[in-house]
Amino acid sequence: MRFLILGGDGYLGWPTAMYLSRQGHEVAVVDNYFRRRACLELNCEPLIPVPNLQHRSQLWEAVSGCRIPVHVGDVCDYPFLRQVFQDFHPDGLVHYAEQPAAPYSMMGHREAILTITNNLVSTANVIHAVNETNLDCHIVKLGTMGVYGTPNIDIEEGYLEVEYRGRKQTFLYPKTPGSLYHLTKAQDGDLLYFYCRMWSIRVTDLNQGPVYGIVTEESAADERLYSIFNYDDIFGTVLNRFLVQAVAGVPLTVYGKGGQTRGYLNLKDTLACVELALQNPAAPGEYRVFNQFVETFTVTELAHRVRDAGRDLGLDVKIQNLPNPRLEAEEHYYQPAHTGLLSLGLQPHYLDRETLQAMLKVVQQHRERIDPDMILPRVTW
Amino acid sequence: MRFLILGGDGYLGWPTAMYLSRQGHEVAVVDNYFRRRACLELNCEPLIPVPNLQHRSQLWEAVSGCRIPVHVGDVCDYPFLRQVFQDFHPDGLVHYAEQPAAPYSMMGHREAILTITNNLVSTANVIHAVNETNLDCHIVKLGTMGVYGTPNIDIEEGYLEVEYRGRKQTFLYPKTPGSLYHLTKAQDGDLLYFYCRMWSIRVTDLNQGPVYGIVTEESAADERLYSIFNYDDIFGTVLNRFLVQAVAGVPLTVYGKGGQTRGYLNLKDTLACVELALQNPAAPGEYRVFNQFVETFTVTELAHRVRDAGRDLGLDVKIQNLPNPRLEAEEHYYQPAHTGLLSLGLQPHYLDRETLQAMLKVVQQHRERIDPDMILPRVTW
Repeated sequence: MRFLILGGDGYLGWPTAMYLSRQGHEVAVVDNYFRRRACLELNCEPLIPVPNLQHRSQLWEAVSGCRIPVHVGDVCDYPFLRQVFQDFHPDGLVHYAEQPAAPYSMMGHREAILTITNNLVSTANVIHAVNETNLDCHIVKLGTMGVYGTPNIDIEEGYLEVEYRGRKQTFLYPKTPGSLYHLTKAQDGDLLYFYCRMWSIRVTDLNQGPVYGIVTEESAADERLYSIFNYDDIFGTVLNRFLVQAVAGVPLTVYGKGGQTRGYLNLKDTLACVELALQNPAAPGEYRVFNQFVETFTVTELAHRVRDAGRDLGLDVKIQNLPNPRLEAEEHYYQPAHTGLLSLGLQPHYLDRETLQAMLKVVQQHRERIDPDMILPRVTW
Repeated sequence: MRFLILGGDGYLGWPTAMYLSRQGHEVAVVDNYFRRRACLELNCEPLIPVPNLQHRSQLWEAVSGCRIPVHVGDVCDYPFLRQVFQDFHPDGLVHYAEQPAAPYSMMGHREAILTITNNLVSTANVIHAVNETNLDCHIVKLGTMGVYGTPNIDIEEGYLEVEYRGRKQTFLYPKTPGSLYHLTKAQDGDLLYFYCRMWSIRVTDLNQGPVYGIVTEESAADERLYSIFNYDDIFGTVLNRFLVQAVAGVPLTVYGKGGQTRGYLNLKDTLACVELALQNPAAPGEYRVFNQFVETFTVTELAHRVRDAGRDLGLDVKIQNLPNPRLEAEEHYYQPAHTGLLSLGLQPHYLDRETLQAMLKVVQQHRERIDPDMILPRVTW
């Protein structure tokens, strides 16, 4: 099968490309290096240096014998994107080519407009390219559990059947996102759902929780193939921040009360989920939604796990509660369904002590590159 | 009070500007002439010639003694928009500056991207300009009843309280729009609702049904002040199409079975609703939604009313059912609430025979300008 990875330079895009190519698929990647430019401009470059895509593609070919052609360009540039579709004829695609950071989207006007236009125009371009070149091409879009917010009722996978005054209607599950980034990830889903109804495109939307992990089977041989590891306040995740703080000997910074509950998953599970989705495509006209995570933690629980894992490595880890820079519920009901991918056969990994310690050791190898100034929150909302 | 009308050249924008200025408010208008350019390019110019905004502003000053300053520019151009806010200091604004046509949004890739970026960037720019210059400025945005689609349960005004497995949550009412245009009008509302929660802006969203009417009290003295009257397949409404077909002696074209039910209102009621909203602003942080229509008809009922009104004027009106160019339910449940504006004091006008005949007479005065070739649908979805 031929799969196109849009946003193939990113934290998930590059490991996905290697993984699928090792499974014997033909894979091509597209990226405009937005994330690298933003990290450069905002002084929050990744902990571990990352060769450019052509270089990584050559390294991967040397390790695996698999070729991954690289197209440097912008998914928002429609003539460029259509040409890639016409040349490569993908059977399926994974759409990671979005601005991925909540704090970035809340920095100011420029970043807000970039987030809206990039995330919606890229998605609309993908839909039109599929419609113009091959309506059967299965679109797998990465979403986020953050689109749901923290409603006071159970979160279902994509849809909600509402009974109201004796009548029934199934709606797309209503979204109450907590950042502009998360809102655009609800809106890209609305675009995809709309064109499923109008043009019968095939779509799977994977609403992920925060993903953790640095090394995959494909990258283990050469750290220049590792996934991008951001630990800063803009592009870093909460777990990456805690791992770096633990190694740097500064307190883990829990925002607010720390009762914020989210669903997490291992990078290896993301790869497996994407492959399961591609191997079992949505039907024509189907907008299929999976909630993609394997276990839930509060932020405080996550901090405790990192502290305990660090203790065995001789790290003296402290925890500090900071005023929350975000407007979000710090204690809330959270009961999201996530059975769809398990029923397709997902074998989950869990965030155990060994996994945390393996990540801490990678961070320790690069501790001289840690810049503690880029960890504390600069953006509030 | 000082009110800024964004999209002040449009079918609703210009009558709103005149109406509010006659009520004694200071009014300024902003427009980039998108609608005029598109009508020129697509060969679907309005039935009655429309002087440019500066000219109309001069005519209005001559008639009424009221000055309406004109700013020609694009709401998507943020430095321009911010400057207008800084110079004019509005207490409230009416945001009409969106691409307003469902068929336009479904024409092709270029028009789809323009609809998405114009409608969402204009709205985001308005929000940021309010946040930067005066957080108290009340945003009145014109929405459309079309955002709801035709669900099988009652349509409430903006919100839906869902009871699910013994727990309760109030959501923004879930939307299932039937065109990309309508989708962007749900998405601009999602943006406004989000920033109400984050920044405590004040917003009223007026989800209108199709509006009819050509002449208002303000324009009655001079037809060069009349509202833009489009009757074509792209920017025209179903009622305008029927009126022109009745006068031109060609059959009224009902799409499909004609059971599509919508809520309609008179242009004069739109003006009253906008004024009521401005006079009773939403609270800080409140995203207030009104469903703005006064009566519902099926398309077939509308055709019968035009036929009957035309008969008294000596017009022999036939009705013809065309294959539906749109993907939409042609028979459906439709029970939308619309009590909010009535409770603020709206005195509705109804689509009676006299109103239809007055419109038919205006069309008759311009019958030599009717181009029947621009009436039949060119865009399908």
